[in-house]
Order: sequence, then C-alpha cells, then structure tokens
Amino acid sequence: MDLPMDLSTVQAAASRIYVPGGCVKTPVHTSSLISAAAGVSAFFKCEHLQRTGSFKFRGAMSAVSEVALLGPETSAKGVVAQSSGNHGAAVSAAAEAFGLPCTVVVPSTTPAAKQDNVTRYGATLVLCEPTQKARVDAAAREAGRMGGAALVHPYNDDPVIAGQGTIGLELMEQVPGLDAILVPVSGGGMITGIALAAKGLDPGVRVIAVEPEGKRLQEALETGRRVVDEGTGGRMLDTICDAIRTQPLGPRAWELNLEKKLLHPEVLSISDDEVRAAMCLTMSELKQSVEPAGAIALAGLLSPAFRELRAREESGGRPIRKVAVVICGGNADLGVVAGHIQKHQEAAGKGS
Amino acid sequence: MDLPMDLSTVQAAASRIYVPGGCVKTPVHTSSLISAAAGVSAFFKCEHLQRTGSFKFRGAMSAVSEVALLGPETSAKGVVAQSSGNHGAAVSAAAEAFGLPCTVVVPSTTPAAKQDNVTRYGATLVLCEPTQKARVDAAAREAGRMGGAALVHPYNDDPVIAGQGTIGLELMEQVPGLDAILVPVSGGGMITGIALAAKGLDPGVRVIAVEPEGKRLQEALETGRRVVDEGTGGRMLDTICDAIRTQPLGPRAWELNLEKKLLHPEVLSISDDEVRAAMCLTMSELKQSVEPAGAIALAGLLSPAFRELRAREESGGRPIRKVAVVICGGNADLGVVAGHIQKHQEAAGKGS
Repeated sequence: MDLPMDLSTVQAAASRIYVPGGCVKTPVHTSSLISAAAGVSAFFKCEHLQRTGSFKFRGAMSAVSEVALLGPETSAKGVVAQSSGNHGAAVSAAAEAFGLPCTVVVPSTTPAAKQDNVTRYGATLVLCEPTQKARVDAAAREAGRMGGAALVHPYNDDPVIAGQGTIGLELMEQVPGLDAILVPVSGGGMITGIALAAKGLDPGVRVIAVEPEGKRLQEALETGRRVVDEGTGGRMLDTICDAIRTQPLGPRAWELNLEKKLLHPEVLSISDDEVRAAMCLTMSELKQSVEPAGAIALAGLLSPAFRELRAREESGGRPIRKVAVVICGGNADLGVVAGHIQKHQEAAGKGS
Repeated sequence: MDLPMDLSTVQAAASRIYVPGGCVKTPVHTSSLISAAAGVSAFFKCEHLQRTGSFKFRGAMSAVSEVALLGPETSAKGVVAQSSGNHGAAVSAAAEAFGLPCTVVVPSTTPAAKQDNVTRYGATLVLCEPTQKARVDAAAREAGRMGGAALVHPYNDDPVIAGQGTIGLELMEQVPGLDAILVPVSGGGMITGIALAAKGLDPGVRVIAVEPEGKRLQEALETGRRVVDEGTGGRMLDTICDAIRTQPLGPRAWELNLEKKLLHPEVLSISDDEVRAAMCLTMSELKQSVEPAGAIALAGLLSPAFRELRAREESGGRPIRKVAVVICGGNADLGVVAGHIQKHQEAAGKGS
C-alpha cells in the first residue's frame, strides 16, 4: 500500500533534509557560450556540489530522517545500504548526520578509493561476492544482525524519490519561468521526484529524460511496457556513465509515471562520444569537474534530438526558452577522466 | 607621480566593476576533508568562476572603466593589451562590457584555443613574433594606430592592482575573522591589491605569497633587492604553472610592499609535484576544474612550510585558524590537465 506521492510529499522531505551536516541548496551556474550554442538560456543545477558529491544524498537524508523520526528504539537499529558508489556514500553520510549506525555492503572488487568514500562518514563496510544475489543476501543478513535495521533502496522507495524531488523545488525557485528540465535517468528516482515537484508547481514545465544509448526508455513509454524486452530485464547498460547503468525504470518510478504522466514522451539518447565531449565542455566552460553521468544532460541539451524536440514544441504552444540541466554527480575516478579527455581530443583531432 | 594606494583605492575600483557584463562576486567553497587535512578552516575563493575564467577580469574591468570615465573621445580610442593568456581575454571582455574598441597582441605561436578565448569577446587579434621586444613594440604600434589607445598592463598599473584587490574586499565580508590569505604570486598585482584591501580592514590578517619553486621571493624580501640575482631578471620560471611564470615582483608591487609591509615575510615555495597533487585534490574534493596556478595556493595550504609557519605564529600571538585560499584561474588546456592527472597518479602509485 503506497501512500500518495505528490508535491506535498516532496515539500515534507524538504522540511527534513536541510539540517546541520545535511543537504545544502546547490547553486545554479550559467555560461553565455553554452546558452548561445544551445539556442536557449541554460541553467546548470550543480548536484555534484551537494554533500558527498551527488544528488543521492538528498534521497538518503530523506529516507534516514524518516527512520530517525520513528524514535530511539528504531533509530538504534540503524540503516543498511548496498552500493559501491554514490548511494553508499550518501546513506553513510546521512546516517552520520542523524547519529544512526550504518552498514554498507559493497562487492569485494570495489576499488579502495570507493571504499574510502563510504567509510569516511563512519559506516561499517561489509564486503561480499560481486553478484547481485550476494549483495541482496548480505544486505538482508546485515540488517538482521543489527536487530532489524532499515534497508535504504537507491531509487525505489518513496522517501528517496521525494528527497531527490527537492532538486525540483530548488530549481523552480532559483529559475523563475523554467520551460524544461533535462534530467539524467537510471532507476528513475531523481527524475520522478523532480517531476512531482516541478509539475506540481507548474504543470506546463517539461521534464525530459536523458539516457545512455541502449536504455530504450522512449520505446518503453510508447509501448507501455516497463521492460521492453524480457531478455534485457536485469542487464546493465554498456556506457561510460557508470553511475546510471540500470536498464529499466524502477517499478515505483514507472507506476508513478503511468499514473501522473510525469515524463515528457520523448527521451534524449546519448552516445559515449557525446558524453565525453560534454564532460570536456563542463570542465573548460563551467570549470566544473564531473563524473560522466554528470555531463549527460548537457550532452542532451546540445543534441540534435533536443533541437528537433524544441522545434516541434515551438509550433504546438509554449516554447522552450529556459532550460535547467541537472549535473547529477562529480565522483569520478580522475584517471578515467584523463582517459576520456584524451579520447575526446583524439576524436576532435585537436590539441586543446 | 603615483597617487596614494590604499583600502579606499580598492573600494573605488569596487564601485566600478560590478556592472552588467562585468565582474561577479565569486563564491567561497569549503571542504571538511581538506580543512581536516590542513588543520585549519579553509575557504576557497573561486576566481576561476570569475567571468573569463580568472581574477584578471577584475583588474581589467577596473582599468578599462577608468578609460571609459575619461569621456567619449578617450573611450573611442580604445584599449590595447599584450597577452596570450588570461589577461588578454580579460581586457577583451572588459572592453566589450564598456563598448570600447580593443586590440590584443599575441605571439604568433599562440594555440588557436587561446586565440579564440580573446576573440570571443570581440577584440581584434594582432599576431607578432614570439619575443618580448616584438610584443611590446607591436602593442605600442597598435595603440598609436588606434589614435592613442590606452595600454593595460597585466600587473604594474594602479587601477589593475586596485581591481584585483576587490578579491580581498569580498573575502573579508564572506569570511568574518580570517587569519590568513594564501595568494598565488607572479607579477604581484593580485597579492598587493588583496593585501591593501584586507590589511586595510584588519591589519592583523596575514597575506602570504605562494610561489612556484625558483622565484626566490622570500630571499628578495629578506635582502630588500627586488631582483635577487641580476642574471635572473627577465627570466620566466620553469614551472607547470604557466599563468605565473614571471620571476621578479613587478616594480609597483615591490614599491607598495616596501612602503606598507603588505606581504608576510615568509613565502611558500611549491614544486610541480605538489601542484599536480593539489590540482587532483581540487578536482576530486572541490569538484572544480582549475589551471595549475589555480591549485598552487592549496598546495601551499598543505605544505610542511605552512605547518611550520603556523606553529611559529601560534607561539607569537594571534593563531592562524581561518585561512582563505585563492583559486586564481581555471583556463587550462584539458590535454595538459589529463597529463598532470596521470603523472600524479603514477607518482602516487595508485589507480584513482
């Protein structure tokens, strides 16, 4: 039995996450050069400057604060997450902010730097075999061992979705008159939360998903089938955007979108080459260092598909003039970043 | 005959530079991890987020606004700068903001990307032989051809120094109770302006120069000789910090420092390896993409020499607890950045 999810749910999450050690309202950056290239006024929402380096901290703060509100007995049991990446660090930091015990399950193959990113906030790290089943089993076992700790899912829980939605609340306040928001999509928690907030405040704003090639989200939206091809159900996408490799939308995001028509029907599909170019532009123009997924919405902004989408919308009503672009995270392995820069420069055939 | 230079000169510059198309008040970023590593509260002044990507725009706006104030006849003659880097882009953008003609002289060896960085603001580009004499001659010739255009020097003019000083005004407002400011130093315009402003507001604040190894500024301050060794007078430093290769302090910065005792007597000397490590830390922790010189003050913050300096000051009076670190610019060639990342990771013997 899911509770209703709407603007007020996101506003309730917002009332819990801006506490000491908690979320910050992230800034919005602009670039006259990028706006000119895109043909719109572009506003970059800097979630890589959120605490822990990604938007995941909003959902984690929202979810962990709900556990904390259940009183000292439940709080004392703590929280468990399974993730070697941004979600793990986010839940760890959120648990620290509320003084809750926290265990994070990561595959034993996780590099030391990513392990440090979890333990620096005080969480207990548990290594498991690098399979999906081993991770789920280990997380359940650890939750039991802690006396019934709460499992925090990265994108399928309502409090997490509502927490990510606070990005939308901030954006609508920071950029009055937004016409569209471009959002990287993986399990769909962030885009669903943002759409609940933004469309709750202005039903005419478009919330447009930007995906790595191969996700086939537009086809899923068109056909009404969450998993377009059963064979792809559990697959990870082959993309350099390592933070957003989940192929289908999560069940809860899917359900909310069916019910409320949150996502724009067109989805921007982005190649690795386009992501690399956008990473370089984010560095050279915005002077921001981001992970590959953090640059994909900018790639969407500059894509031919978005130009065509704008032309179609222009003829049909409210034009798209002011566009927010969500930079979702900045936790990149710098050696990988260096490789992407070089590959982009080789492709562009230039030295700078 | 130089006019007096003090806090009020900087305040006068501040009254001219924050106009449409002009300077922005740059944000201050923090990192609990870096503050913990440094043993102080560190505040990063983000001049790489200044328009044109470096602090140089402040001095250029200050100088060009003075020309504009002289009336339409003088304004119409325009301004000339000679620089292939940040100063050239800054003067070009400042001239555009005030609607003045502008010519920028650059060596013919300047890469296309750097030329674009000047012409994107509408300046006329003039190529010359890549020697200091050819650049000076060409700038004078262009100024004459424009009917007597004003030459804007990168660091030796009072309006430029006063403009850079607005960084100090902003910092003292943004971080109440600052104990020290770490500033990259080349010709010395920025550190002199910052010191005039900051010490004018609080005479007890230390303004500490951070230099590439080989500059020998501390020796110059100790001996009272601007050029320590006549043989080094016109030399460029051998450093990866390409924006701050001038060896001696500029004459005007030197004179002001002798007169007002602006700089802390100790100077932090930084190696290329330390700069590379600080560039990587700026990317991984602050998520900011900066040029090598933009990271040198952070390297100073983390240097053993600064730890020793702090220990000495601690025993002698007001301790150093709150420290501003000036990130002076972000206009890096990304291919070069990629090389620095890889060299740092090889030196650190790790993959991330």
